Amino acid sequence: VRALKNRFGPVHELGIFEMTGAGLVEVANPSALYLGSGAGGRPGSVVLAGVEGTRPLLLEVQALTVEAKYGSPRRTAIGFDGTRLALLLAVLERHGGMSLSSHDVFLNVAGGAESAEPAADLAVCSAVAGSFRGRALPAGTAVFGEVGLLGEVRAVSDAALRLKEAVSLGFRSAFIPAGNAGEAAAFPDLSIVPLRSVEELLAKT
Amino acid sequence: VRALKNRFGPVHELGIFEMTGAGLVEVANPSALYLGSGAGGRPGSVVLAGVEGTRPLLLEVQALTVEAKYGSPRRTAIGFDGTRLALLLAVLERHGGMSLSSHDVFLNVAGGAESAEPAADLAVCSAVAGSFRGRALPAGTAVFGEVGLLGEVRAVSDAALRLKEAVSLGFRSAFIPAGNAGEAAAFPDLSIVPLRSVEELLAKT
Amino acid sequence: VRALKNRFGPVHELGIFEMTGAGLVEVANPSALYLGSGAGGRPGSVVLAGVEGTRPLLLEVQALTVEAKYGSPRRTAIGFDGTRLALLLAVLERHGGMSLSSHDVFLNVAGGAESAEPAADLAVCSAVAGSFRGRALPAGTAVFGEVGLLGEVRAVSDAALRLKEAVSLGFRSAFIPAGNAGEAAAFPDLSIVPLRSVEELLAKT
Amino acid sequence: VRALKNRFGPVHELGIFEMTGAGLVEVANPSALYLGSGAGGRPGSVVLAGVEGTRPLLLEVQALTVEAKYGSPRRTAIGFDGTRLALLLAVLERHGGMSLSSHDVFLNVAGGAESAEPAADLAVCSAVAGSFRGRALPAGTAVFGEVGLLGEVRAVSDAALRLKEAVSLGFRSAFIPAGNAGEAAAFPDLSIVPLRSVEELLAKT
Amino acid sequence: VRALKNRFGPVHELGIFEMTGAGLVEVANPSALYLGSGAGGRPGSVVLAGVEGTRPLLLEVQALTVEAKYGSPRRTAIGFDGTRLALLLAVLERHGGMSLSSHDVFLNVAGGAESAEPAADLAVCSAVAGSFRGRALPAGTAVFGEVGLLGEVRAVSDAALRLKEAVSLGFRSAFIPAGNAGEAAAFPDLSIVPLRSVEELLAKT
Amino acid sequence: VRALKNRFGPVHELGIFEMTGAGLVEVANPSALYLGSGAGGRPGSVVLAGVEGTRPLLLEVQALTVEAKYGSPRRTAIGFDGTRLALLLAVLERHGGMSLSSHDVFLNVAGGAESAEPAADLAVCSAVAGSFRGRALPAGTAVFGEVGLLGEVRAVSDAALRLKEAVSLGFRSAFIPAGNAGEAAAFPDLSIVPLRSVEELLAKT
Repeated sequence: VRALKNRFGPVHELGIFEMTGAGLVEVANPSALYLGSGAGGRPGSVVLAGVEGTRPLLLEVQALTVEAKYGSPRRTAIGFDGTRLALLLAVLERHGGMSLSSHDVFLNVAGGAESAEPAADLAVCSAVAGSFRGRALPAGTAVFGEVGLLGEVRAVSDAALRLKEAVSLGFRSAFIPAGNAGEAAAFPDLSIVPLRSVEELLAKT
Repeated sequence: VRALKNRFGPVHELGIFEMTGAGLVEVANPSALYLGSGAGGRPGSVVLAGVEGTRPLLLEVQALTVEAKYGSPRRTAIGFDGTRLALLLAVLERHGGMSLSSHDVFLNVAGGAESAEPAADLAVCSAVAGSFRGRALPAGTAVFGEVGLLGEVRAVSDAALRLKEAVSLGFRSAFIPAGNAGEAAAFPDLSIVPLRSVEELLAKT
Repeated sequence: VRALKNRFGPVHELGIFEMTGAGLVEVANPSALYLGSGAGGRPGSVVLAGVEGTRPLLLEVQALTVEAKYGSPRRTAIGFDGTRLALLLAVLERHGGMSLSSHDVFLNVAGGAESAEPAADLAVCSAVAGSFRGRALPAGTAVFGEVGLLGEVRAVSDAALRLKEAVSLGFRSAFIPAGNAGEAAAFPDLSIVPLRSVEELLAKT
Repeated sequence: VRALKNRFGPVHELGIFEMTGAGLVEVANPSALYLGSGAGGRPGSVVLAGVEGTRPLLLEVQALTVEAKYGSPRRTAIGFDGTRLALLLAVLERHGGMSLSSHDVFLNVAGGAESAEPAADLAVCSAVAGSFRGRALPAGTAVFGEVGLLGEVRAVSDAALRLKEAVSLGFRSAFIPAGNAGEAAAFPDLSIVPLRSVEELLAKT
Repeated sequence: VRALKNRFGPVHELGIFEMTGAGLVEVANPSALYLGSGAGGRPGSVVLAGVEGTRPLLLEVQALTVEAKYGSPRRTAIGFDGTRLALLLAVLERHGGMSLSSHDVFLNVAGGAESAEPAADLAVCSAVAGSFRGRALPAGTAVFGEVGLLGEVRAVSDAALRLKEAVSLGFRSAFIPAGNAGEAAAFPDLSIVPLRSVEELLAKT
Repeated sequence: VRALKNRFGPVHELGIFEMTGAGLVEVANPSALYLGSGAGGRPGSVVLAGVEGTRPLLLEVQALTVEAKYGSPRRTAIGFDGTRLALLLAVLERHGGMSLSSHDVFLNVAGGAESAEPAADLAVCSAVAGSFRGRALPAGTAVFGEVGLLGEVRAVSDAALRLKEAVSLGFRSAFIPAGNAGEAAAFPDLSIVPLRSVEELLAKT
C-alpha cells in the first residue's frame, strides 16, 4: 500500500537528469528546469514533497473537476488509490463546503508515477480544491501532510527530509502540517505555512 | 484476514518514537504526545486497543457519516474490511435505531494502518455512532471488543495485553466486553466500562 | 473451497482454552463456559457442528434479516461463501415460503472464523429462518447437514465425529440429516432430530 | 478451466465409500445406496456421468428456476462456470422456447463438487429444463454431452469410460450425444437415448 | 493474452484422434470426420484456421444473436476475450450496418478451447454476422484475419501454416486478409477469397 | 504499469520482418511495407513512436467513436489502460470542447500489442479526436507525448530514440511535445510539429 513507484518519466520532468543517447546526464541547475515548467503555479497542479522508501521525491499531482452530467459522479484516479480519493472528497465536501458530489473528479500523478503514502493527502486536497475553485497555490510551493476524516491535517514522518529536497530544488515555500512545524525551523529559506485543518488550507489559498 | 499492518506513520503519531535523520529516537513520555493530539476526544475519533500478532498496538479509528444524496448510500473503508463495516452498520441500524441506510459512511484508520481483527468492531461502532450522533467518548479512552449480529458485545483474546498497553500510554478509561471484565480487575488505574451490547454502548455515550 | 480457517478468537469463545500471558490454558469445563454465552438459544444464532480437515470444530453462525429499503435486497456474508448464501436463500424462499427477496440478509461466523463445507448449509438456513421468523432452536442444540436445491437435507461425512464433539461440549440435542441418523444411534445422550427437508426443519422449529 | 474437483462429500453420497472413524470403508453395493437417494428421479435433479482427469465420476447436478421479481433475472451457479450457464440458458431459450429470461436460475453441483468440462452441458440443460417444466428424467438415468450455440448436442471424449461407470453403479439408461452412439453399443444393459439437439432432448423428456 | 489453450475435447472433434480406452488412436481420414459434423456450413458456425504457439489448430467458433429484452444488451463470450468481442461488435455495427446494440450476443469456441490471437477476429465477425443475418459461409471454408477498428481486414503471421493445415483436413476454400493473398498462391487446391474490409466480408456472404 | 508487450503480430505488420516457414526473414525496405498499409493516414488511425524498455517500437493506435444509445457511454480499450483513456477523454472534453460523454469510445492497439507508457497519450488523443472529427493526421506522421490533466503536452524521455526509428522507417513528420523540440533539431529530414497543449493539437489537425 505504501509502495511508491517512480520511473524515468518524472525524473526527467523534475529536471534532475536529462535522458540522452549517452545515458543519464546530470543537469547543473535542476530546480530552474523544474520550476520552469510551471508545475504548482496553475489551478489543479500541486507539487507533492513525497518520500519513496527512504528517498525524497517531488511529484506533480494534478486534478480536474467537471460538473457531472449523470446522477452518479465519476471518480477516476491514476497513480493514487481511488478509495482514498473518495474519502478525501468527502472531507472536502463536509469540511470545505465544496459540492463535489455533483462533479466528476479526475486525479493524476504526472509522468506515470504513483504515490501511496498518507502524506500525499494534502497535495491531493490542494489540487482538487484548486481545480474546483480555480485558484492556484503560489508558484514554487511544495506540499505534504496526512488529512483525517475529521478534517484535521496530521503530522507525517520524514518532514526534514522532504523540506531539504524542496529547498535543494529551489522551492521557496511549503504547506505543511502544524504538527511538523518544529522540524521546519531548520529551513529558514522556506516560507512555511503550517496547517491544522482543511478549513485552514482553504482559507489560505 | 487477520493480518494487521502498521508502518512508520502511526507509530510516529502514537508518539512512541520520533523519526529523525538519526533514525528512530524513543520519546520519553509518549502517552502525553499521543493524547496531546486529542485522538479519541472528538466525535468520530476512537482509539482502538488492538493487537498485531502478539504485539499490542493502539490505532485511531475515524468515521464520517453524511446524509446520502443518492438512493444507494456509499460505504467507503480504508484500513478495515468493507464487508465487515456493512455488517456492523446493519447492527447499529437494527439494534441502535440509527438510520444509517440513508447516510454515506466513511471509515479510516489513521496513519495508513490496517486492522483485521474482530476486536476492532467495538471501536468501529463507537466511531460511526460518534459521528452520527455528534458525541465523543471521554478523552483518554481506549476501546476493544467484537460485535455480533445480534447486537451483543463478545469477549476477545489478549484483553490483558491490550489494557496494559493502554495504561502505559496514559489512557485513563476503557470500553471493553463484559466477558473480559475479569481480566480488567488487574488494572485498578483504569476506569473500566464493561459492555454486553451495542445498546449499552449507546446508552453510556 | 472447503478450507475452514479458525483462529484464536472462536477457540477462546468456545471456552476450551483460556488465552493468558502464560499461553493457552485448558479450561476444566468448557461446555459450561460455552453454553453459558447463550449461543444457539436466541433467534438468528445457531451452533454448527463443523469439521476442519479431520478436526471437529463448533462454530456460531449468526444471521440478521431486515426489510429491504431498496428494490434490490443486499446479501452480506462474512466467513461463508456469498454465492452459496444466495442459493440457500432461494431454497428457503421456494421451499419455505419466506419472502426473503424483500429483505436484506446478513450472515456472520462469530470470532472471525470461516466455514466452507456444504455441511454448514443447515446451520445457515436455521440461522436465517430464526432471524426472519423470530424463533430460536432449543438451547444446547448443535446443527449440521447439506441442503440441496430441491429443498432436501443431504447426508454429510464425519457425522459421528461431529456428534462426539457436541456431546463432549455439553450439547443436549442435534438437528441432523435423516441420512446420518444411523450414525447418531451411538450417542444416546443426544436428543436427535433427523431431517429430510427444509420444510421439516421449519415445521420443527 | 477443465479442472474437476471432487472431495469426500460427493464420494460419500455416491455410496462407494463410507467415511468412518476407521477411515474409508468400501460399500458392498454402492449403486443401490446411490440410487436409493432418488437422485435423477426428480425435476431439477440430473446425474452427470463426468470424467475428472482420467477417472470417471458421477455427480448430481441440481437446478432451480423461479419467476424473477426484478427486471434483470439472477443467475447463480456453484460448482459450474456462471458464464457457461448463461450461454446454455440462451440456447434453451432460443432452441427450446423456454422464457428463461424472466426467471431467476440457480445451479448447484451437490456435495460441493465442481465440473468444468463441456461434457456437463447436457446435464445442466436437462436439470434447468426439468425444473422449469416440472418434468424429471427417468430414474436411473445418467447424462453427458456438450451443447453448442446452434442447439446441437456434440460428441465428447471418454464416452465408454463414462458409460462403464454408470453401468457399474446400477444405472439403467443414458442420454448421450448421437455422435457417441457407436461407443454405446458395447453396453447392451443400458437403454441408450442418442440425441442430436436440444430440441430432441426436450421432445424426449 | 496470446495464449491459446486446447485440450482433448476439440482435438477429438477435429477427428484427428479418437480417444479410447487404449489411449489416443489416430484416425485415418480426419478431415472427412471433421467436415462430416457440418461445422462451418450453418449460420453462426465458422471454422477458424488458428495457430497455437507454432502449431496450427482448426477451431469451430459459434455465435448466437438474440433480440435483447432489456435496455442494456448482454455480451457473453467463452473461449474468446469479452472486451475484444465488444470492440468487434462496434466495428460490425459501424461498418456493417448491423443493429447489434439491440441484440444479446453469445460467443463460444466449441470443445472448451480458447483463442487469444487477433487472427481469430475475422472468424468471430463471420460467426456473429452469420447468426444475425441467417447466412452461412460455404461448407468447407476456413477463416483467419485480424479486424481493425476502421473496419479493415489486416494481414496476420503464419498464413501458409494455417492454409496448409486447412488443406490437409479437406477444406476447399478460405476467407483470408488480402494482405496475405501472396502466401495463398502456394495452395492451388483452395478457393481463396481475399478480403480488405468487413464490408467486403459481408458483401461476399 | 509501464510494461509494453509486443509479439510477432505487430512486428510483421511493421514490415521489418517477414515470418516464414524458414523463420524470421528481414525485409529489405521495411518502411515502404509499413507505410504502404496506409496506417496514420485515415481518421482514427495514428502511428505512435513508442519505446519498449530501451527498444523503439512503432505501433498503430486506432480509435472509433460512435454516438451512445444509452445514458452511460461505453469506453472499451484493448492494449491501453482503460482508466487512463477515461482521463484523456475528460481532457479532450474540457480542453478540446468535444462532447465525448455522449459517445461510446473504442480504442485498440493493432496487432494485439500493448502500450503502457504515458508517452502514448498524445497518439491516443489524436486517434480519438481524428475519429470524432473525421480528420486524419498527414500520412507518414509519427506521434508521441504525455498529456496532463490541465491539457498540457508534457515532454517524455527517449525523444531522440523515437525520432530516429521513425526516420529509419520512412516517416516524414512528427507531432511531439514542445519540451522535446531541442532533441528534434538533430533530425532535419523530419517536419516537426511541436505542441504545448491539446488545444494546439486540435488547431493543427
